[in-house]
Amino acid sequence: MVWDILNIVGTLAFAISGAMVAMEEEYDILGGYVLGFTTAFGGGTIRNLLIGIPIQDIWQQGNLFIIASLAITVVFLLPTGWLQYWNKWGIFFDALGLAAFAIQGALSAVQVQAPLSAVIVAATLTGSGGGIIRDVFAGRKPLVFRAEIYALWAALGGVVIGLGFINGPWTAGILFAAIVVCRMLSVHFKWKLPKRTMTS
Amino acid sequence: MVWDILNIVGTLAFAISGAMVAMEEEYDILGGYVLGFTTAFGGGTIRNLLIGIPIQDIWQQGNLFIIASLAITVVFLLPTGWLQYWNKWGIFFDALGLAAFAIQGALSAVQVQAPLSAVIVAATLTGSGGGIIRDVFAGRKPLVFRAEIYALWAALGGVVIGLGFINGPWTAGILFAAIVVCRMLSVHFKWKLPKRTMTS
Amino acid sequence: MVWDILNIVGTLAFAISGAMVAMEEEYDILGGYVLGFTTAFGGGTIRNLLIGIPIQDIWQQGNLFIIASLAITVVFLLPTGWLQYWNKWGIFFDALGLAAFAIQGALSAVQVQAPLSAVIVAATLTGSGGGIIRDVFAGRKPLVFRAEIYALWAALGGVVIGLGFINGPWTAGILFAAIVVCRMLSVHFKWKLPKRTMTS
Repeated sequence: MVWDILNIVGTLAFAISGAMVAMEEEYDILGGYVLGFTTAFGGGTIRNLLIGIPIQDIWQQGNLFIIASLAITVVFLLPTGWLQYWNKWGIFFDALGLAAFAIQGALSAVQVQAPLSAVIVAATLTGSGGGIIRDVFAGRKPLVFRAEIYALWAALGGVVIGLGFINGPWTAGILFAAIVVCRMLSVHFKWKLPKRTMTS
Repeated sequence: MVWDILNIVGTLAFAISGAMVAMEEEYDILGGYVLGFTTAFGGGTIRNLLIGIPIQDIWQQGNLFIIASLAITVVFLLPTGWLQYWNKWGIFFDALGLAAFAIQGALSAVQVQAPLSAVIVAATLTGSGGGIIRDVFAGRKPLVFRAEIYALWAALGGVVIGLGFINGPWTAGILFAAIVVCRMLSVHFKWKLPKRTMTS
Repeated sequence: MVWDILNIVGTLAFAISGAMVAMEEEYDILGGYVLGFTTAFGGGTIRNLLIGIPIQDIWQQGNLFIIASLAITVVFLLPTGWLQYWNKWGIFFDALGLAAFAIQGALSAVQVQAPLSAVIVAATLTGSGGGIIRDVFAGRKPLVFRAEIYALWAALGGVVIGLGFINGPWTAGILFAAIVVCRMLSVHFKWKLPKRTMTS
């Protein structure tokens, strides 16, 4: 039940972020739907492909499809002023989605008895893969490779689950909260991963 | 028989459009083949992956592969002056391909008893997915998200088929003609889907 | 045994080239890992998807994952001066990887009795598909479509194998050497495939 709600929150946040990027690129409303759906469902789809989960399962999410469609439609109809609230609250909802998707992705990999490497990739892809496709479709360099720490928290969640530390709703809840907090702290303190350039 | 011909026309139109984009980007002839093949066969391949149709089926299209190869080769050999006819006639052939591919994609999804959402995605992807990959490989923002209405007609064709309105060659023929006409009207009257920017 | 070593050399070369591109784009270290892994394992993964080889097989490469991770880490720690040797030696190692991956990709397609067209695509994708994804993720136009002849040698290797000319370690070794030599000659003499522009 709680997971269902978190899944909905994450789907909403990801669909909205895709629609917003489409508007920033001056795409039309169909582009908005495509980017919204790609961001919300793309990561899980690629995960299923790579982990070997039957891909047809993605079509069982009819309710989430409707929710995502409604969210994208609302984004296109809202006055611009309202959209600016997204910058404040969107990052928080997105963090909820990141955590929910990463945990769900890792658990589904564990369920098909995938090895640790696959669990980590599943968590990372489910959490951040949709955003990577979104940015490629928008003709941008994927944000996740450059911005404040994001996918790393999903990957670490995958490590924790892959090593078998999660065995019940309590531990899963703590991991969820930890990912959300780490992500929000990353944004607030502008934590970035080290990078280096060829000229440094 | 008629569908075979339409399938060939669509494959030709899509392969040529991929080769033309490769030339516009100053890619070499191998880039032309890759973009031509990606545009012609990429949409159907991703559809098979997502709908759960055995992916090996794509290798049964040997004749279409040969036709696409020949078309791309001809494009590279033709004098530039001739290529300009493409701008006039290419849009029409491309519309035939869009309609044929969308209907075929939707029908193949119905055949594996996919739900309505999957039928719509199958029609849209088969019709326009190849063009999206083509543009990504060319380092462009996908045209389908910005230009005159294109993928929407494929999606609507998917709705009509998914709802079960097509039950024979006559209704399929009418749907085919409707998609082609709608696409050509979109180009002629510059119909575009609504868009909005963040600053509007 | 020899193939294992060549496979390791190729994985190393491809992982390093991905990490180098990530640094050139000022991506952070996580971007370096993602691009490194995508370049090293992306081609083989897409090949498995398209040829119908069970995708879970990719997770059996645990040792290669560790080797690739170490290589990417070293790239990020090495002083810049050292990285410049890569431009000299990297092209050679990359050619070894191209040849090893192309042959391995074609052989795995033959093993599942794929038709000739699929064998050629498998060789080409395994050899150059990872580099294409790397460039897309880096927001670049794929190098393989424009630079000195590269993927063609993989494709020709696929033709030779698909036609059944390879039936033992000796012939495979000769093909391997031929691909490496052709690739190195292409770089040295700046062999390029013909291209044409719309204005020529």
